[in-house]
Amino acid sequence: MRVTMVHVSVKPERVSDFIEACRLNHEASVQEPGNYRFDVLQLEQEPTRFVLYEAYASLEDVAAHKRTLHYHTWREVVEPWMAQPREGVVYQGLFPKID
Amino acid sequence: MRVTMVHVSVKPERVSDFIEACRLNHEASVQEPGNYRFDVLQLEQEPTRFVLYEAYASLEDVAAHKRTLHYHTWREVVEPWMAQPREGVVYQGLFPKID
Repeated sequence: MRVTMVHVSVKPERVSDFIEACRLNHEASVQEPGNYRFDVLQLEQEPTRFVLYEAYASLEDVAAHKRTLHYHTWREVVEPWMAQPREGVVYQGLFPKID
Repeated sequence: MRVTMVHVSVKPERVSDFIEACRLNHEASVQEPGNYRFDVLQLEQEPTRFVLYEAYASLEDVAAHKRTLHYHTWREVVEPWMAQPREGVVYQGLFPKID
């Protein structure tokens, strides 16, 4: 399982808009073949900070996600709402064992 | 959904042991009522660093997890293998919507 965590810091006045854009991205992404998780998380201690937790079966599935309309729409829509550039961190998902 | 990410840095010579201890913790934890995810992740760029991604329906389920034998066993067994103290970060899981 390939996991990417996308860390996003959002301008305070755009938090509600950002959550709504992520809801749409979540709902479409979980329909993709090869998607295992697309969790949208808000930091409890700092509610302007978010993590998108995205798990896919393979690198090909990750690449296919980046070709979807909902991914591109999310990226363009939320770009001006970010307080700083987003950061992605890549993990190998060991358990559950999904290759 | 309540999400805790536990960040762990492991001594290089203990990475295999740590992965095995996490496998046992994963297998028992996913059986708990209220557990949604118990993913064990290894940082791609730095394989001595791990994240345990733990999602539960409620705070009560998180508290119940901390009373299990497998949790206490994991904590005691891996303690001397850590290169530095572990760190937990708590998130509110917005999507999927599980309360």
